[in-house]
Amino acid sequence: MRKLFIANRGEIAVRIARTAKEMGIATAVGVSEADLGSLAAQAADENVVLGPAPAAASYLNHDAVIGAALELGCDAVHPGYGFLSENAAFARTVDAAGLIWVGPPAEAIEMMGNKAEAREAARRAGVPVLKGTDGPLDPEADALEIARAIGYPLVVKASAGGGGRGIRFVHDESELLRTIDMARGEAAAVFGDPTVYLERFVESARHVEVQILGDGSSFIHLGDRDCSMQRRSQKVIEEAPAPDLPDSVRQRMRESSVELARQCGYRGAGTVEFLYDPVRQEAAFIEMNTRIQVEHPITEQITGVDLVREQLLIAYDGVMSLSQEDVAFRGHAIECRINAEDPDNNFFPSPGRIVRLAWPQGPGIRVDSGVGEGSVVTPFYDSMLAKLIVHADDRPAAITAALQALAETEIEGIKTTIPMHSKLLSRPEFADVAHHSKFIETAPDMLEAS
Amino acid sequence: MRKLFIANRGEIAVRIARTAKEMGIATAVGVSEADLGSLAAQAADENVVLGPAPAAASYLNHDAVIGAALELGCDAVHPGYGFLSENAAFARTVDAAGLIWVGPPAEAIEMMGNKAEAREAARRAGVPVLKGTDGPLDPEADALEIARAIGYPLVVKASAGGGGRGIRFVHDESELLRTIDMARGEAAAVFGDPTVYLERFVESARHVEVQILGDGSSFIHLGDRDCSMQRRSQKVIEEAPAPDLPDSVRQRMRESSVELARQCGYRGAGTVEFLYDPVRQEAAFIEMNTRIQVEHPITEQITGVDLVREQLLIAYDGVMSLSQEDVAFRGHAIECRINAEDPDNNFFPSPGRIVRLAWPQGPGIRVDSGVGEGSVVTPFYDSMLAKLIVHADDRPAAITAALQALAETEIEGIKTTIPMHSKLLSRPEFADVAHHSKFIETAPDMLEAS
Repeated sequence: MRKLFIANRGEIAVRIARTAKEMGIATAVGVSEADLGSLAAQAADENVVLGPAPAAASYLNHDAVIGAALELGCDAVHPGYGFLSENAAFARTVDAAGLIWVGPPAEAIEMMGNKAEAREAARRAGVPVLKGTDGPLDPEADALEIARAIGYPLVVKASAGGGGRGIRFVHDESELLRTIDMARGEAAAVFGDPTVYLERFVESARHVEVQILGDGSSFIHLGDRDCSMQRRSQKVIEEAPAPDLPDSVRQRMRESSVELARQCGYRGAGTVEFLYDPVRQEAAFIEMNTRIQVEHPITEQITGVDLVREQLLIAYDGVMSLSQEDVAFRGHAIECRINAEDPDNNFFPSPGRIVRLAWPQGPGIRVDSGVGEGSVVTPFYDSMLAKLIVHADDRPAAITAALQALAETEIEGIKTTIPMHSKLLSRPEFADVAHHSKFIETAPDMLEAS
Repeated sequence: MRKLFIANRGEIAVRIARTAKEMGIATAVGVSEADLGSLAAQAADENVVLGPAPAAASYLNHDAVIGAALELGCDAVHPGYGFLSENAAFARTVDAAGLIWVGPPAEAIEMMGNKAEAREAARRAGVPVLKGTDGPLDPEADALEIARAIGYPLVVKASAGGGGRGIRFVHDESELLRTIDMARGEAAAVFGDPTVYLERFVESARHVEVQILGDGSSFIHLGDRDCSMQRRSQKVIEEAPAPDLPDSVRQRMRESSVELARQCGYRGAGTVEFLYDPVRQEAAFIEMNTRIQVEHPITEQITGVDLVREQLLIAYDGVMSLSQEDVAFRGHAIECRINAEDPDNNFFPSPGRIVRLAWPQGPGIRVDSGVGEGSVVTPFYDSMLAKLIVHADDRPAAITAALQALAETEIEGIKTTIPMHSKLLSRPEFADVAHHSKFIETAPDMLEAS
């Protein structure tokens, strides 16, 4: 009898337990003291307390997680998303403990975790990458000529930077040389390394991604998603397939993502993320996520494939159940992330007890929830409570279905982002696919009280 | 702007409204006085009272329904299932009023409503029919020889009978002539017509059916369903695809059902019902239902096709959106009809107020419900409240998923058939597809208190 340890919480723990159960796999989940009464704790056959509420003492504690998995006689660990899911060291420890890691090999996690290596791997696989200097800008080179080839606007980035730091914007040629000088000086001062590189800047970019699966010998894609509706770089609404993409761009993204997986000998579910420039109609590699995504249900809804099942098949049996020819697409799916936040008060977290909860029901509606009526939302973790997913025949129908489903959802006791979703989905910019990843920040009325 | 009148109540009214809304069609629903506060009344854009609670005064009142549809400026009528859905006279009245009838032509309803005509049409189309005398038993013929060709056990049926009346069972040859004599005398006395016919009797039969769609020029099937788990001839649990069918039987059922639709020039959704004899591995035509079925969602879940959408496309635009090549099947779906009945008290109706209601959520779960928390279940109508539908990768996974979903469902204030479903789905006979349409009645422990 197989027994899976779920090293996560909330809706994804509930969701993993459901598929494992259907596959006849026993489940155990490790929870923090704060999550003992959670749906996730009830969803698995067994639960065990990992430690106190702070994630560092429970969900992120390698020893506690592996100790619990071994003590309960589990043979595999599913990390979900976030927490330990992209931690190569943890993947190695799981392996060393004789447990099956439900995820790609540690080497793949590491490679994709390193921006430069990931970009190089993408380039080798033929994945389109953002135009730029492909490495440090040689201080002796003719920066003006190089920049002309890249095109304006562009950014000067410190090679040792990251996380949004060490970036300077260049509108046109007149600013270039001065900005490079300033960026080098700043990089030397802040990071101890003056090296900078140039990269094209894309305004009003959309975020598009390709879902891939691999089992080390077969590699397939399950189509694309658009996750452009973001707030402070956090995805808010996702949809599949990605709308308004030229066929040639879509095909190249999909095929090169599969090629990238093949060149890595990838095993498991992964997502290749792209920045899409709707003006130039060009896609460029951002990064590859080596885990299940929050937004995986929209891909499941348009393909009928259970991605967690495929993850478990690959981990336990070494092979996935699908070939590319088995993957067919039907309709359009939209996911709204329902967060316990007050959209009328700058999205402050809104912990508390959910005194009333009614989700919408019916054809094409799916809710992946980590909470039920009576659940207490604590302030310790990510504020996402649930994902409301709708599937309909085409994009306009899916938008209508999502608005209807949001209107039917009743949550009392805490504030949620539901009113924001209704506003966003009603915007003509969304209907016209004229939104982009900074849309919420640049549409000031979106942040007004509803 | 199109506007659809929904001439039904409960979950199917809610479900039709949802798809219409997604298609940009306005909706109105006619309700009885007892249903004014129902989900169905809220689900449509407008609602109007047809009359008092008894169906004859509201949902079955042709004039009230058509008058309301016209008064609200509707251009089409969807009858759902039950009520007026297979009433050819009503279909004609709708047409005469200048409204679009969302269903097949009145002639098709009439033909299929006549047992003998339907059987003859089925035979012409190559649909397998039950072995029998193919018409009245000639009083001069050698009944013994005819019966030998049919095989025992068989039944003697009064031609003028119906609805289970005028049927006599014959175990073997020794009983035949005497039973025919008795049946003739009884038929003459009861129906005024001594004509009888002979038909093979199938023990432990399964109920299998094929979903078809036609638009008058194209005709397709959407696979099969098994609805063998019945209580007093009422379907209780349905699944798709039908399990444990030889490929040749399945193919012939599907293809001949499409041929039957073609020969009728069928328009709309229909279901060809078969009795399947698992011992002889033979299927035989029962009847064709000329409307959407209660159990249509399981077909939707394994095909990804919205059947109500196709009905509306065919009715409004004259063409469906699919060809046979577009129909692909994935996984296995099971539907449990949740009735407001007390399984511990001989399935007596259990009206009352639903004080608490929590449906299960997550991947592969769909609930089509006519009630919400706070809804009042009245004693006036069919006791079905909702349908719990699960979709999983294969039949064992779907059974597990259904049991899990039933366990997660919380309904307080009234009694429901949920405990019965959990018992039925846990039975080894169901797992082994050894159940049949009389299983519940013949398994006495099924009717015991849970």
